[in-house]
Amino acid sequence: MLYMVHMQVNLPTDMDPAEAARIKAEEKAYSQSLQRDGRWAHIWRVVGEYANVSIFDVASNDELHDLLSALPLFPYMDIKVTPLARHPSAI
Amino acid sequence: MLYMVHMQVNLPTDMDPAEAARIKAEEKAYSQSLQRDGRWAHIWRVVGEYANVSIFDVASNDELHDLLSALPLFPYMDIKVTPLARHPSAI
Amino acid sequence: MLYMVHMQVNLPTDMDPAEAARIKAEEKAYSQSLQRDGRWAHIWRVVGEYANVSIFDVASNDELHDLLSALPLFPYMDIKVTPLARHPSAI
Amino acid sequence: MLYMVHMQVNLPTDMDPAEAARIKAEEKAYSQSLQRDGRWAHIWRVVGEYANVSIFDVASNDELHDLLSALPLFPYMDIKVTPLARHPSAI
Amino acid sequence: MLYMVHMQVNLPTDMDPAEAARIKAEEKAYSQSLQRDGRWAHIWRVVGEYANVSIFDVASNDELHDLLSALPLFPYMDIKVTPLARHPSAI
Amino acid sequence: MLYMVHMQVNLPTDMDPAEAARIKAEEKAYSQSLQRDGRWAHIWRVVGEYANVSIFDVASNDELHDLLSALPLFPYMDIKVTPLARHPSAI
Amino acid sequence: MLYMVHMQVNLPTDMDPAEAARIKAEEKAYSQSLQRDGRWAHIWRVVGEYANVSIFDVASNDELHDLLSALPLFPYMDIKVTPLARHPSAI
Amino acid sequence: MLYMVHMQVNLPTDMDPAEAARIKAEEKAYSQSLQRDGRWAHIWRVVGEYANVSIFDVASNDELHDLLSALPLFPYMDIKVTPLARHPSAI
Amino acid sequence: MLYMVHMQVNLPTDMDPAEAARIKAEEKAYSQSLQRDGRWAHIWRVVGEYANVSIFDVASNDELHDLLSALPLFPYMDIKVTPLARHPSAI
Amino acid sequence: MLYMVHMQVNLPTDMDPAEAARIKAEEKAYSQSLQRDGRWAHIWRVVGEYANVSIFDVASNDELHDLLSALPLFPYMDIKVTPLARHPSAI
Repeated sequence: MLYMVHMQVNLPTDMDPAEAARIKAEEKAYSQSLQRDGRWAHIWRVVGEYANVSIFDVASNDELHDLLSALPLFPYMDIKVTPLARHPSAI
Repeated sequence: MLYMVHMQVNLPTDMDPAEAARIKAEEKAYSQSLQRDGRWAHIWRVVGEYANVSIFDVASNDELHDLLSALPLFPYMDIKVTPLARHPSAI
Repeated sequence: MLYMVHMQVNLPTDMDPAEAARIKAEEKAYSQSLQRDGRWAHIWRVVGEYANVSIFDVASNDELHDLLSALPLFPYMDIKVTPLARHPSAI
Repeated sequence: MLYMVHMQVNLPTDMDPAEAARIKAEEKAYSQSLQRDGRWAHIWRVVGEYANVSIFDVASNDELHDLLSALPLFPYMDIKVTPLARHPSAI
Repeated sequence: MLYMVHMQVNLPTDMDPAEAARIKAEEKAYSQSLQRDGRWAHIWRVVGEYANVSIFDVASNDELHDLLSALPLFPYMDIKVTPLARHPSAI
Repeated sequence: MLYMVHMQVNLPTDMDPAEAARIKAEEKAYSQSLQRDGRWAHIWRVVGEYANVSIFDVASNDELHDLLSALPLFPYMDIKVTPLARHPSAI
Repeated sequence: MLYMVHMQVNLPTDMDPAEAARIKAEEKAYSQSLQRDGRWAHIWRVVGEYANVSIFDVASNDELHDLLSALPLFPYMDIKVTPLARHPSAI
Repeated sequence: MLYMVHMQVNLPTDMDPAEAARIKAEEKAYSQSLQRDGRWAHIWRVVGEYANVSIFDVASNDELHDLLSALPLFPYMDIKVTPLARHPSAI
Repeated sequence: MLYMVHMQVNLPTDMDPAEAARIKAEEKAYSQSLQRDGRWAHIWRVVGEYANVSIFDVASNDELHDLLSALPLFPYMDIKVTPLARHPSAI
Repeated sequence: MLYMVHMQVNLPTDMDPAEAARIKAEEKAYSQSLQRDGRWAHIWRVVGEYANVSIFDVASNDELHDLLSALPLFPYMDIKVTPLARHPSAI
C-alpha cells in the first residue's frame, strides 16, 4: 500500500554541529535500511530545499506511523502524508 | 531528470457526458503512451480526490512543459511541478 | 484501518431540485449501506456547513478510494483524507 | 454533544527529556481518565505527525473548554475545535 | 450556550432581482423571529462586506445546526461557527 | 461604535511563572475596568484556545487602538480588528 | 476617522459591454462625488490589477458601510476594510 | 526600472475557440511589440501552467499599469507585480 | 511615484527595554525626517496591531528599497510593498 | 535550462555581527563567482525585503540543487524553485 510522504527538516541553526552530524548519520542509516527492505520505496530531494518527497510501501497506516515516528530527525521535521491508490490509467 | 507533478482535474459538472468520456479516453491513451516510453515514470491516484501524483523523467524543463500542455485534460487541470534531485541517502 | 474523511458538498445553486433530491437520496442509501456493513464507521454533520466529518474503516487505500469515488455526490464534493493510526494513549 | 478536536503538539526540541516525559505521562493519565468516563470518546493519531484527532462528548462548550485547557500539554498545543451535529444519513 | 457565527453571503450576480428580494425578505423575517425569542442574540454587519458576525445562544450543537441550515440564504452562504465559553475575566 | 476584536495570546512557554501570573492579573483588572465602563462590551473565550472574541464599544478608531495597545498582554498577542455596523435585520 | 479600503473588482467576463460601461460610469461619478466632499480621501490603482487602495475619512463605521454598500460595483467587488489610527511618529 | 510580473491566464473552458485564438494572437503581437522596444525584457513559461513570469523595464509604476491593463488577455488574467531593485551582489 | 508599504514590527519579547527604546527613538527620528522631505507621504497605525500602513513618494524602486532597508527597525519587520498608479477616477 | 529561484533570508536578530558579516561576504563572493560563469543569470532585490528573485541557467535539477545547497546562507533561507520553459511569444 503506497503513501506519498513530504518531509521538511527544520534543524535549529544553533544546533551543535557534532550533534547534527550524529543525527543525520543515524537518519541516513535508518532510511537506507528501510529502502533495502522495500518499505521506503523512493526518496527524492526537493530542489533548493532541505526537504524530501518519498514513497512508502507498507501494510497499514499504523506501520507507516511507526516507521515515521522512529525517524531520528522526526522531532525536527514537518511531515505530511498523502495516501495513494492505483490509478486507472497506470500500466 | 525527475519531477513530481500534482494534477487536479476540475471538469465542469454540467459537461456533456459523451464529451467528457471522449477526453478521458484520450487522456488515458496519451498517459499510457508516455508511461510506455518511460517519460511518465509513475502515476498514482490521490485517495478521495480526482487528482494524481506523478513522477516524470524527461530531459529538460521544456520537454516537461511540452508533455504537460499537450494533455487532453490540460485546460481542466491545476498542475503544480516540483523539480527533484537525487537524495544523498538514496541507495 | 481508519481514516478521517472531510467532505464538503458544493451543489450548484441552480441545480434542478428534482435532480438534486434524486442524488441526495442515492447518497443517503449508499452511505447507510456502507454504515451497515461497518466500513463507514461514523458520520457527523459539521455545524453550520453542508459538510461532514466521517471515519472509514477499510482494508486499504484502494478500497477507500473505490468507496469514495463511487459516492453519488462525488462530482460535487471536495474531499480530504487523513490516515489515522492507533494512539498510544487510547484505552 | 459531540465535538471534533484536532490537537497538534509542539514541544520545544531543547526541552529537558525528563520534564517532557513527566508531562507526557500526566497527559496520558489525564486522557485515559476522560476516556474511561466517556467524555473523550475517541482519540486517533494522525499518521506521520505529533498530532491527534479526537471526538469529545460533553454537556456544553464550557465543559469542553475546561477539559481542554486542563490538558498537561495545553501550553504546547495548537487546538482547533469543530462542533458536530447528528447527520441526517447516520443510522 | 454561545457560538460566534460568521456568515458570508454570495448571491449570484445574475440572480433574478425579484427572487433575490423574496429570499432576503424571508431571511430578515426568519432572523428577526430568532432574535425575538433570544436564540439569535446579536447580529452585526461586517463593514464593507455582504457578511455578518452573529452570536447565537442555543441549547446544543444540533439546535444550532437546525437553525442555520434552515436560513433562507443558507444555500448561498459560507458559514463558520466558533464555539464560545465563559471568559474568566468576564464580569 | 462597535468592533469585533479577536485576541490570541502567545506567552513564551519558558516565561517565569510569577511574571506570567503578574501580567495576567494586570490584564484581568484592566479588562474588568473597561468592561465596567462599558467600552469592552463582551468578552468570550474561544473553546480550546488561549484566545478570546470581544466586542468593543468606543468613540473612534483612535480610542480603540489606545485601549488595545495598553493591554498588559499586548506584546504577547496577535490581534485582529473587524469594524462592525448596524445590521438591517437587527431588531 | 480614517480607514484603508482595498477593493478588488470581479466583473464577469461575459457581461454585456454596454451594461459594464454604464456601471463603471456610475461608479466613477459616485466616487468623484465622495472625493469632492472629502470622505473618499485617496484612491490609487494597484499596478497590474483591477483593484484599488483607498483611504476613507468618515464619522463612523456605519457611515463607511453605507458609502461602500452603495457603490454601483459593490455586487462585483471583494472589499476589505482596515481601521486606521494616528501613528505616534506622524508629523 | 525593473518589475517581476507573474501572469496566470484563466480562459473560460467554454470560450469560442475562434475568439480565443483571436485574443491569443493579439496578445502575442502585443507582447512581441513590447519585447522589441525593450520594455518587456523577459518572458518565460511556468512549466506545467498556463502562466508566465516576466520582467518589465519601464520608467514608472504608471507606465507599467498602462502596459499591463492594455493586455488583450487582461480580463482573463490574475497578475501580481513585484518591484525589483539592484542587488548589492549583482555584477 | 507612489507605493503602499505595510510594515509589521516583531520585536523579541525578551529584548532589552533600553535597547528597544533606543531603536524606536531612532526609527521615529528617521521616519519624521523622511516625512518632512515628502518621501514618506503618509503613515497610519493599523488599529490593534504593532503595524503601520504607509504611502511613499519616491523616484524609483531603488530609492524605495534604500529608504526601507535603512529603517532602524528593518531587521525586526515584515514589509510588503504594493506599487500604486494614478486611478482613472481620481480627481 | 532556466529556473526562477526566490530566496528569503532569515538571519537570527541576535546573531553575532562579525559572524553575520563573514557569512554575507562569503555569500557575495560565491554568488558573483556563479554570475561570472553564467549559471546565476540574474539576481534582483525584492523591494523592501531581505529577499531576492534570481534566474539560474544550469544543466539539470541536480546541478541546481548542488549550487543552492552550497550557498553560505542556505541554512538561513527559505528557497522556492520554479522551473521555466521557453514562452511561445518570446522573441
